[in-house]
Amino acid sequence: MRPVCLVLGAGAGIGGNVGKRFARGGYHAVLCRRSDQEGLDQLVHEIEDDGGSATGSLMNAIEEGAIENTVAEIEAEIGPIEVVAYNLGAQIGDRALANTSLKQFEVGWRLATFGLFRVAHAVCPQMEERGKGVFLVTSATAAVRGNKGQHSHAAAMGGRRMLCQTLNAEFAPKGIHIAHILIDGAVDAPDTLGKMLGPERFRQLREARGQEHDGLLLPEKIADTYWHIANQHRSAWTHELDLRAYSDTAWWNHA
Amino acid sequence: MRPVCLVLGAGAGIGGNVGKRFARGGYHAVLCRRSDQEGLDQLVHEIEDDGGSATGSLMNAIEEGAIENTVAEIEAEIGPIEVVAYNLGAQIGDRALANTSLKQFEVGWRLATFGLFRVAHAVCPQMEERGKGVFLVTSATAAVRGNKGQHSHAAAMGGRRMLCQTLNAEFAPKGIHIAHILIDGAVDAPDTLGKMLGPERFRQLREARGQEHDGLLLPEKIADTYWHIANQHRSAWTHELDLRAYSDTAWWNHA
Amino acid sequence: MRPVCLVLGAGAGIGGNVGKRFARGGYHAVLCRRSDQEGLDQLVHEIEDDGGSATGSLMNAIEEGAIENTVAEIEAEIGPIEVVAYNLGAQIGDRALANTSLKQFEVGWRLATFGLFRVAHAVCPQMEERGKGVFLVTSATAAVRGNKGQHSHAAAMGGRRMLCQTLNAEFAPKGIHIAHILIDGAVDAPDTLGKMLGPERFRQLREARGQEHDGLLLPEKIADTYWHIANQHRSAWTHELDLRAYSDTAWWNHA
Amino acid sequence: MRPVCLVLGAGAGIGGNVGKRFARGGYHAVLCRRSDQEGLDQLVHEIEDDGGSATGSLMNAIEEGAIENTVAEIEAEIGPIEVVAYNLGAQIGDRALANTSLKQFEVGWRLATFGLFRVAHAVCPQMEERGKGVFLVTSATAAVRGNKGQHSHAAAMGGRRMLCQTLNAEFAPKGIHIAHILIDGAVDAPDTLGKMLGPERFRQLREARGQEHDGLLLPEKIADTYWHIANQHRSAWTHELDLRAYSDTAWWNHA
Repeated sequence: MRPVCLVLGAGAGIGGNVGKRFARGGYHAVLCRRSDQEGLDQLVHEIEDDGGSATGSLMNAIEEGAIENTVAEIEAEIGPIEVVAYNLGAQIGDRALANTSLKQFEVGWRLATFGLFRVAHAVCPQMEERGKGVFLVTSATAAVRGNKGQHSHAAAMGGRRMLCQTLNAEFAPKGIHIAHILIDGAVDAPDTLGKMLGPERFRQLREARGQEHDGLLLPEKIADTYWHIANQHRSAWTHELDLRAYSDTAWWNHA
Repeated sequence: MRPVCLVLGAGAGIGGNVGKRFARGGYHAVLCRRSDQEGLDQLVHEIEDDGGSATGSLMNAIEEGAIENTVAEIEAEIGPIEVVAYNLGAQIGDRALANTSLKQFEVGWRLATFGLFRVAHAVCPQMEERGKGVFLVTSATAAVRGNKGQHSHAAAMGGRRMLCQTLNAEFAPKGIHIAHILIDGAVDAPDTLGKMLGPERFRQLREARGQEHDGLLLPEKIADTYWHIANQHRSAWTHELDLRAYSDTAWWNHA
Repeated sequence: MRPVCLVLGAGAGIGGNVGKRFARGGYHAVLCRRSDQEGLDQLVHEIEDDGGSATGSLMNAIEEGAIENTVAEIEAEIGPIEVVAYNLGAQIGDRALANTSLKQFEVGWRLATFGLFRVAHAVCPQMEERGKGVFLVTSATAAVRGNKGQHSHAAAMGGRRMLCQTLNAEFAPKGIHIAHILIDGAVDAPDTLGKMLGPERFRQLREARGQEHDGLLLPEKIADTYWHIANQHRSAWTHELDLRAYSDTAWWNHA
Repeated sequence: MRPVCLVLGAGAGIGGNVGKRFARGGYHAVLCRRSDQEGLDQLVHEIEDDGGSATGSLMNAIEEGAIENTVAEIEAEIGPIEVVAYNLGAQIGDRALANTSLKQFEVGWRLATFGLFRVAHAVCPQMEERGKGVFLVTSATAAVRGNKGQHSHAAAMGGRRMLCQTLNAEFAPKGIHIAHILIDGAVDAPDTLGKMLGPERFRQLREARGQEHDGLLLPEKIADTYWHIANQHRSAWTHELDLRAYSDTAWWNHA
């Protein structure tokens, strides 16, 4: 029985590519995303065509019990969850405080902070019993500094980062590796950046900075580092790292 | 009409002392706390006996509309809120993940993160119109690093810190001063530390480290710095600072 | 005998104003700077005209023994040094690596890092014996993030910040208060910013952002916070804080 | 002609293992250390026995011109330096300020900060011309927080970290990857930890925490991550990461 890599937030960007990478490495990838059954099926087929093993399901992580039931079903029917790639977030763009509703702020937290707590709550007991597990938490610049118009996103991501540290403090000595991976820049991902910008602006950005310029983070290259982190020897684990395109400006520098 | 200093979380520790300090400085202090009408009345009387002006009310900040209504009533009936001292939190002690319920995690966020968002949402429009305002946000070490057993507290406080930065980025140029004040140590406060430890252990700690040793943070001394921050000239505002007893070890150092 | 506030780097900006503020508070200010005897004399006269007590001397802090001799002379002839305002630095502007000589890099370190170590080395034993002392260390954004062209400045300031933390860890429990004060923005100071920009550009900047706009940090307002920090009760000391103009962008945010 | 991986500080711990790892990956390793010709020769032989290519020389990095001449000779006679593993430091143990001489403080800086500046100064022009290069900078917890007794080490490492950021800001867009690798814990290295503790205490520590417990960082496992970092695709580079044993406490947590 293959160990399972559970990807929460498995679109065509980081999540999907992490699923592919771990499937190629011998894991069964379980791909969850909120919508787009077609995109999900295609991802599963691509993995299978590549000789890997994967299943997927649509899941609204905000719903009560959704994450918990998914974990229970996988553990009961598919295999032991060894890796969780937590890739959910709610970047709602640049919004002034007055334009950020209480509801939006709460949804941001439910996706970016509470969901991670819930999946950890659901799966850590089993991982602890097995003495092994990995959480690969996709994070954002907003986890380390709050910028204008990012009230919801930054508060949620800042909570997420501190949660990663508390999980690490409790579970690393039990063999569970938690990694907080700060993606500091735009990812070449049609499902997220593409939707945020719209097709025309996304195409222009790719031409100007992406593709042969490598000025956008390529999700398949990000996935290579996720794979490395998950395979670090336990005597030398990384808890926090950043990733950005070589040509981009680090968040702590001004352009 | 005196300007109002609204204290959310006005116990006998930081909150109450900040109320006293601002009342002494000419503000009308509005003191809100969840319970203990007697303690609240006593605080109001102490301020009045000292020649100051104060009112108080019990308020459960988690309830829908509670913060918003309080802000509206003050603005309509008492005076312009110039200073908000946000002093709410939900330190539930050291709890393993398995012993931290989803409910507790959510309550931690509602008090420490969402409540600040709500009060900012409610009062910033008026402050912006008046071109002036101050948020003094009491924060904790958990806002900058997550320790074992602090899942709820650290996630909530980490979110709070990032929220302070987003508020600062949007509102500082509009004359609203947001300060994130990291209290890095035990405060000599009967309502919080005293309740957490119980009367006997609190008495022992005070004898060993507090009182003439000044090894616990004295809330009336903390309040002096809150007052200074609120009165900084706008050409030289502090956004983040830490406070700890001289004899204590900084959070980034090991004892 | 008045306690002494020793200002290293006492130009017309932060250093001079800190000297004035502490003289007004009852200290004898000893003002040291590398050059401009006339400017130094004027500063001393302004303090004396204001009813304060001050002396000054030109001193090249890089010279072997210069700092040490100054400390010894003050302690022997003037009075106990209670406060050191360390205000030296070597911001040489934006220089590519190829244009930063080994000599410049070393001078940056000698002024910004080594000088602080030397003055601490010279004066801490006496402060420790008296059980009291304060170091107010003017720092810069470069202490917390390295930007392009800042090789010398950032390396020196980053070292300075870590040195402040080691000094705090050793000496705070002995009653010596070390504060690292991050000045995050342009200071309205003719001796430093004025010289860097030249008179015409400095005049334009002041008109555009400074003066009634308060968009440059006013050194006399900065000095008020230095005074507050030096007077915090030992149960609630600040080790790190930032200062910036309300209208300016924090270093962690992009404009 | 094989590309060169230059290791400065090539003892039996991180440096030597990084040399081995890169030699195994097709680089010619140039190993430099201050003393122990025998140990150096053995390292070279081990690499050659493993089918790799290496040379070594004793070098005192503090001496004027030593780093610069080494770089020039390698570039002229061996091959293009593609990777620099900067592994020099001067951890002199826990020393109170009074016991840290000015000389020691300066040596700490010369090894940990200035040496990195010098090697970057010497080799970046060639790397820039070739549009490629990697700096793998071994760093320490002292780079991010100053602890008691670490005056020299922390000031030097804090400067080093800021220098890494300025180098990254200038050279990443030119294809030169700078990585600051924070080793947060004790490394199972006879040349450094072994010498600091002495043979008996080192043996005891290895038995208690190292070996099958994996509670000390194993340098050959650290080297795997150095290798990964050096091979990241330029669209997704890591600038900062930490490494610690799974069972160890992170620096920001208290034991």
